[in-house]
Amino acid sequence: MFMPEFRQNLATKEWIILAAERQKRPAQFARSRPPMGETPAHSASCPFCPEQEASTPAAIAAFPSGSESGGWQVRVIPNKFPALAPGPDEECVACSTHEGPYLRREGVGHHEVVIETPRHNEDLPMLPPEHIEQVMLMFSSRYQALVAMPSTELVVIFRNHGEKAGTSIIHPHSQIVASSVVPFMVRNKLYEGQRYFDEYNRCVYCDIMQYEREHGARVVMENEHFMALTPYASSVPYEIWLLPREHHATFGEAEEDELRDLARALQNLLARLYRLLDDPDYNFVIDTAPDHMAGVSFYHWRLEIYPRLTTRAGFEIGSGIGINVVSPEHAAAALREACGDRIILE
Amino acid sequence: MFMPEFRQNLATKEWIILAAERQKRPAQFARSRPPMGETPAHSASCPFCPEQEASTPAAIAAFPSGSESGGWQVRVIPNKFPALAPGPDEECVACSTHEGPYLRREGVGHHEVVIETPRHNEDLPMLPPEHIEQVMLMFSSRYQALVAMPSTELVVIFRNHGEKAGTSIIHPHSQIVASSVVPFMVRNKLYEGQRYFDEYNRCVYCDIMQYEREHGARVVMENEHFMALTPYASSVPYEIWLLPREHHATFGEAEEDELRDLARALQNLLARLYRLLDDPDYNFVIDTAPDHMAGVSFYHWRLEIYPRLTTRAGFEIGSGIGINVVSPEHAAAALREACGDRIILE
Repeated sequence: MFMPEFRQNLATKEWIILAAERQKRPAQFARSRPPMGETPAHSASCPFCPEQEASTPAAIAAFPSGSESGGWQVRVIPNKFPALAPGPDEECVACSTHEGPYLRREGVGHHEVVIETPRHNEDLPMLPPEHIEQVMLMFSSRYQALVAMPSTELVVIFRNHGEKAGTSIIHPHSQIVASSVVPFMVRNKLYEGQRYFDEYNRCVYCDIMQYEREHGARVVMENEHFMALTPYASSVPYEIWLLPREHHATFGEAEEDELRDLARALQNLLARLYRLLDDPDYNFVIDTAPDHMAGVSFYHWRLEIYPRLTTRAGFEIGSGIGINVVSPEHAAAALREACGDRIILE
Repeated sequence: MFMPEFRQNLATKEWIILAAERQKRPAQFARSRPPMGETPAHSASCPFCPEQEASTPAAIAAFPSGSESGGWQVRVIPNKFPALAPGPDEECVACSTHEGPYLRREGVGHHEVVIETPRHNEDLPMLPPEHIEQVMLMFSSRYQALVAMPSTELVVIFRNHGEKAGTSIIHPHSQIVASSVVPFMVRNKLYEGQRYFDEYNRCVYCDIMQYEREHGARVVMENEHFMALTPYASSVPYEIWLLPREHHATFGEAEEDELRDLARALQNLLARLYRLLDDPDYNFVIDTAPDHMAGVSFYHWRLEIYPRLTTRAGFEIGSGIGINVVSPEHAAAALREACGDRIILE
């Protein structure tokens, strides 16, 4: 008889339910967008395309440097509808104030968009390898600039791909938010990392990598500096963690050769997802300790990919327990079989 | 200049961002379904419609009692694709086991579906008041039956309305999961409730109700036993909490007259949402302490409604901070203006 299973996330102590009886084959998850190959390379109505630079706020940075308003390959702009915005002057760090029993703070921070390529239809799995390396180097350089701001407590780098992942803009882009609070969820991961370190004198993420390498069933791929696996307590189908093999608590500690390897590993994983699940909607996010914790033994930055194949419903909202219908062992096997070469559209 | 705002949920200490510059008017949120009025009252392909009782597992309960296989007004069945399932015998409470460094448990529990009406197109806001009262009485009676099971640690009652809320079945129904673990998220709410009680010797939810009644801006409606408000740190647009005015930690403590009043308040709120947002997709969930905590001073059960108007994207996933584009003060004002009378389709 079929029996669902609770699995606990070793790094957060959160439970998920693996209910793989409803398991779907990859082709049963429907894509919400027209294929990338049917999208033009330039769109006159896209604010992120070249020649429309004037329709966005002035660029903050670009690659090659100096190409901010023309000839760029990667372009960084302030988000026109920011979730957080700079205070009246950068030295002014927001204060908490009360409204009755409640606590509030000014929404001080920064919100940037990284336009990853001038070509409207050239998504990350299609970029020349040296180009996606420049995107990762730009992530790193914006991270360093943002952690240097007095109001920054945490930098969150993330990507929304497709409508189910929260974006309607097709043009390839990622986003960076510098937040002036460290959220509860991140604090809990730091806390659980510290508790694990107290007990075993080792980083929980390093231990996970070691166990997964020995075990093998959940490893997707490895390269010199990175290891990709489907976590034991994956909260969604085909969830992937991409971890640096060398222990670093913060994204800011990644060296240039690691960033180049990150680009190659990320492209490889996104190409596998593209082929296996027909270009699924997904979010990725770089999970890092706050920058002032650089060097700590108990945390380990990583890039996490969350395909948006199923919908979070009332039980998940009410309990915080994810229901996952594809086992991570099955997902890893299918991802290993999929080809990780760069996608070349006809 | 526009400035976003962090707000802290007093009951959980989680932050949200209110970024109401992007604020949308209700009509700008699109509905994903055909209007209920275009849906037939009976569908031969619907497993929840009368005369198709044989296509579901055998009923667990029905109203009127004895009508399980015909003539029912409310019918409870086991979920055919359960997230959790009974163990080999009910006395067998699942044990945790290890897989390498990881913890797992058998997915022991119960997963039931409450079919709320025999009529395929008669949703909660349209039910005769005495009928929706029977639905709430059924919630309560199934809650009592499930907390009596040895494996049950927490009962989660929830409803998914519309595709964005995670259901493709139109026929009006709710679900009940009896879980053999108490999840992290629920523990954190209990913990923060206790901390607040340590400091003030009062229930945080009772304090919230008192402040909101004095303040007024976030109150949607009240009746004899219930109060509806849009929480100060609403994580999504038009989030509503429906709280019993009398302090009870668990749903199991609700008396029959309170359950009847819950039905009337819930119908009133769903009718307002239906009119204001054109029958939006939503989830609701009954948030309760575990039943063995009945009577504690520091927790307060409630029904929470989460309209699914926007999409949780990479920043929310990576930080746990919700971004809300409609202020709860604005949402409450609009909901107060909307009519709460029962919906009568032409």
